[in-house]
Amino acid sequence: MPVSIPESHLDLFEKKSIAYLAVHLSGDAMMVNPVWCSFDGTHVLVNSVEGRLKDRVMRKHPAVTLCITDPDNSFRYLEVRGKVAEITTEGALENINALAKRYLGADEYPYMRPGDVRVLYKIAPEKVNVMAM
Amino acid sequence: MPVSIPESHLDLFEKKSIAYLAVHLSGDAMMVNPVWCSFDGTHVLVNSVEGRLKDRVMRKHPAVTLCITDPDNSFRYLEVRGKVAEITTEGALENINALAKRYLGADEYPYMRPGDVRVLYKIAPEKVNVMAM
Repeated sequence: MPVSIPESHLDLFEKKSIAYLAVHLSGDAMMVNPVWCSFDGTHVLVNSVEGRLKDRVMRKHPAVTLCITDPDNSFRYLEVRGKVAEITTEGALENINALAKRYLGADEYPYMRPGDVRVLYKIAPEKVNVMAM
Repeated sequence: MPVSIPESHLDLFEKKSIAYLAVHLSGDAMMVNPVWCSFDGTHVLVNSVEGRLKDRVMRKHPAVTLCITDPDNSFRYLEVRGKVAEITTEGALENINALAKRYLGADEYPYMRPGDVRVLYKIAPEKVNVMAM
C-alpha cells in the first residue's frame, strides 16, 4: 500500500511547485532534474515523452525520489520516495495540458513536437518527509 | 580528473542558488534535499553536521548528484554528477559562515547548536549538464 501525502502539504499540488526528480542511471549514477508534477489522490504523477532518457531509465529502475518545493518558500517541501507503479500513455496528453494550464496559464502544452508520445508515470509513495520552515 | 564547471553557469555559486542534493540510502532508495553549496574552483562544496543522515550516507556512498538552480529562473540549472572526494572538518566552520553571509546576509551562521561539528564535503564533478532556458 502506498503511504499517503500529509494534508498539510497537498497545496503543493495546486501551486506552481517544481519537483526535483532523482532517477537511477547506470551504475551508481543518479540524474536530478526539475519537473512538473501532480497528484491523483494516491500517486504522484510526472509526465515525459516516450524514448527520452527519463522515460528509458524509469522503465528500467522504478525507484525514484521527488523533492517537491513550495515556490513561495524554498525550505518548505515534500520529499517523496517511491516506486513507479504504472507507466501509461492513457490520460498523458490531458495531464500535460492540465499542467500547462497550472504552471504556464496556457490552454494547451506549447512545447509539443511532431511525433511526441506523452507518457504518464504514476509513482506510489513509500516514504514521505515534510519540511515546513 | 574532475570535469570543469562551464563558465556560463559559475554565477550560480554567487547567487542564493538552492542545490537539490541526491544521495544514496540503503537499497535503491535515494534522498533529495535542498542544500546551500559553493565552489572551490574544482569541487562543489556542501556542508553538514557530523552524525546526521546526510553525513552518514555520504561517508558510505560517495556517488551524489546536485541540481543547482538559478533563483531567478527555475529552468536554468546546473546538474553535477560526481563523487565525494574529500570529507573534512577543516574550513567547514568558515565555509558555513560564508554561506550564511551569502544566503542570509548574516555575519555568522545562526543555526549552530552546542556540540555541532560542521563537516565539508568536496564533490569532484564527473559529468556536468547545463540547462539554460
